[in-house]
Amino acid sequence: MSPETRADLLDMVATAVDDDSASLIAIAKGETALEHDRLSGEVARTTGQLRLFASVLREGSYLEATIDHADPSTTPPRPDLRRQLIPLGPVAVFTASNFPFAFSVAGGDTASALAAGCPVVVKGHSAHPRLSRATATVVQDALSSAGAPDGTLTHVEGRATGSSLVVNPVIRAVAFTGSLAGGRTLLDLISTRPDPIPFYGELSSINPVVVTPNAAANRAEEIANGLLRSFTLGVGQFCTKPGLVFVPADSEIIPLLAEAVTHAEPAKMLTPGIQNSFTQTVAQLSHIPGVEIAAGSVDVSDVTLATPLALTLDAGPFLSSAKALTEECFGPAVVVVQYRGTEELDRCIAHLPGALTATLHAEAEDMDTLHSLVEQLGSRVGRLILNGWPTGVAVTWSMHHGGPWPATTNPLHTSVGATSIRRFQRPITYQGEWGGLLPPALQDANPLRIPRRVDGQMIP
Amino acid sequence: MSPETRADLLDMVATAVDDDSASLIAIAKGETALEHDRLSGEVARTTGQLRLFASVLREGSYLEATIDHADPSTTPPRPDLRRQLIPLGPVAVFTASNFPFAFSVAGGDTASALAAGCPVVVKGHSAHPRLSRATATVVQDALSSAGAPDGTLTHVEGRATGSSLVVNPVIRAVAFTGSLAGGRTLLDLISTRPDPIPFYGELSSINPVVVTPNAAANRAEEIANGLLRSFTLGVGQFCTKPGLVFVPADSEIIPLLAEAVTHAEPAKMLTPGIQNSFTQTVAQLSHIPGVEIAAGSVDVSDVTLATPLALTLDAGPFLSSAKALTEECFGPAVVVVQYRGTEELDRCIAHLPGALTATLHAEAEDMDTLHSLVEQLGSRVGRLILNGWPTGVAVTWSMHHGGPWPATTNPLHTSVGATSIRRFQRPITYQGEWGGLLPPALQDANPLRIPRRVDGQMIP
Repeated sequence: MSPETRADLLDMVATAVDDDSASLIAIAKGETALEHDRLSGEVARTTGQLRLFASVLREGSYLEATIDHADPSTTPPRPDLRRQLIPLGPVAVFTASNFPFAFSVAGGDTASALAAGCPVVVKGHSAHPRLSRATATVVQDALSSAGAPDGTLTHVEGRATGSSLVVNPVIRAVAFTGSLAGGRTLLDLISTRPDPIPFYGELSSINPVVVTPNAAANRAEEIANGLLRSFTLGVGQFCTKPGLVFVPADSEIIPLLAEAVTHAEPAKMLTPGIQNSFTQTVAQLSHIPGVEIAAGSVDVSDVTLATPLALTLDAGPFLSSAKALTEECFGPAVVVVQYRGTEELDRCIAHLPGALTATLHAEAEDMDTLHSLVEQLGSRVGRLILNGWPTGVAVTWSMHHGGPWPATTNPLHTSVGATSIRRFQRPITYQGEWGGLLPPALQDANPLRIPRRVDGQMIP
Repeated sequence: MSPETRADLLDMVATAVDDDSASLIAIAKGETALEHDRLSGEVARTTGQLRLFASVLREGSYLEATIDHADPSTTPPRPDLRRQLIPLGPVAVFTASNFPFAFSVAGGDTASALAAGCPVVVKGHSAHPRLSRATATVVQDALSSAGAPDGTLTHVEGRATGSSLVVNPVIRAVAFTGSLAGGRTLLDLISTRPDPIPFYGELSSINPVVVTPNAAANRAEEIANGLLRSFTLGVGQFCTKPGLVFVPADSEIIPLLAEAVTHAEPAKMLTPGIQNSFTQTVAQLSHIPGVEIAAGSVDVSDVTLATPLALTLDAGPFLSSAKALTEECFGPAVVVVQYRGTEELDRCIAHLPGALTATLHAEAEDMDTLHSLVEQLGSRVGRLILNGWPTGVAVTWSMHHGGPWPATTNPLHTSVGATSIRRFQRPITYQGEWGGLLPPALQDANPLRIPRRVDGQMIP
């Protein structure tokens, strides 16, 4: 199938999902405890992703087409060499509980794998089985109407099926969004294959936030309110939820945040299992020496709703229990560490594990003093945010959604944005005078009209 | 260090290796049994690789700089997002026995990792320890004179040191060229890390060759002689050695090849261990049912020199023992399979494992009939060669040296050519108005004057 045909196909899938969004959202509401606006926004993101990849295919850079004409003057004479990326083969996609559309059956992993030219086997999530089946039917019908081969998208269910999928000889790559434990289990299974395959797992992220003294002094209320919105967005069930915040000791941010959290509404989480896990995790966090409850409750008897929670402690106790305090807590809880001076902050930063994001709140007058801090944060994460919040991941050419372990299993690649297609492609080089047997992207006449590198020069 | 400074540094390392080539080649001759011309050609390739990466750094595309300006018109408003690739961190390089320069201390893995901005720890190969130490000293002195930090290149030795290296928490990626067994051992060790890291292993490749009936009829002598040169080049000790050749039954190629092989000189292999392994492997191959010795000897008593060897068998017996016959034999031996008709050839191709290369010898009048064969071969390899030979790997923008397992552990990446730098880089995105804290590649003024994608458009 040509890139243009695949682009049309992705557009048609997007249209089909949009057309059926009312019924899909109704199913999702029944299964996920998520609100209508959140779900309809997520459908828009999902179809936007499908359309972005259609545009990526039409633009053509994703093929990395490269031509080096023969050079008889070198020793030895260099033959004609032409390189492009080709589909890796069938991809297994493990969907996430927390994005029933955008990281599920028709989500970013599926869209990027189909865009690359790979058939997809989706393992639906047990948190929304009816929605997964319904979405699969919509996508399959659209693919079929558009002339895609049977088996372009297959939907399977169940943990045992998932385990057998990652060791199936036909599968050439696995994309996964979920827990550290679940991802580690699949990775270890893949390691037992006679031919281990790439595993793109997005696992766990604490998403640290650092507030400078100047920012804390000038914008305490704005930061407290922004933080509340970000860590409670989607009941704290986002991979980019800011989980750990460093503020100057005795900053106004803490009482302001406590006040705001006190008025935040408890809410239902995605599943009783997730709710239960949140309740247990926050209870454990609250027992770490030095941790105080700034606002909210760690009542283990209430397992129906998650109450937003802010914990706080000093840098000293944080350093003593850094390992436990830097593990992701899935749900509406945040830990605020009070630091005294740059040196103490630096010691804390040195204990941070890999993460998807790090956020810095700073003032213009701070900028000249932040090089070292930005370098320290940047060495640990895939996205650096200045004076904003990590939740809300724009789907663009420049987005990177990834990071060092345990944020992901493979820091080279992203699971959001145009370049996520690269996970499912591999290079091939044609050497010699292949003529009409060359794929269109590598023919001299450039029939696809795509950007290429020819004899070392980029030709857009 | 800026890309320009790193480029200068690579140029200086290249100059230093060239300047000391006479003494380095003298050491290599004493340790490797390779001839002067071969070694001096390899030094030229090695310094050429270092200079290629200097030019890659100056060109700047390797940073994949991408800018999406803020767009307040979207819902939600899109912030300013800027992406580039950054160094992954310290890289462990395991060198190869068969390229004492080009895949050793100053070889392609080291060059591409240093180019990416990663410090390198090289584990020297026990087949050329004195050369490894001498090369490390030359490189370290050049790096030091050029102002590189201490520890930019470290040289270590010994199998136990190598094993501890791949589980060292500081190491962020491993590049390896060697045997399937050795690579598998290191990969399994890496899987035990709390934070598994990318392993780029180039392990084993049979490099199949297919000759069409027309090519066999028109160019039997040329093909027989070309094949002899290719499979005996460097005493058959190249990863791209053609190990398995499919020719039409009763082709003139077999007697012509047998005649040529009979006159080929025995030669000394890199080490007694490699020689011994070759002697055992060819003896085992010769005992597979249906295999005949076309020319050469499988005398297990001679363990000082390797005698070029051509084995032959029909497609039927090949299909019965395909697993054993598609394992790499390191040394000057080739297996020639005689096929009768396209259907039998297709059945043989279906049994081929992943490989670095596949080679096709065909005539102009064949081209219209080859689409399916080329697709079948292409699905298994990283480089397709028409009417040439796989040995001799040009170092260019379009070269791909990689392929599906067991050719490599990671089919997405290459270990030769400009794009091999991508193995040692990871993306990072800056979100928000970072101003002067943005790295130069992402500043609006484009001070590095590099190709970038801005608001979706490639600007060369």
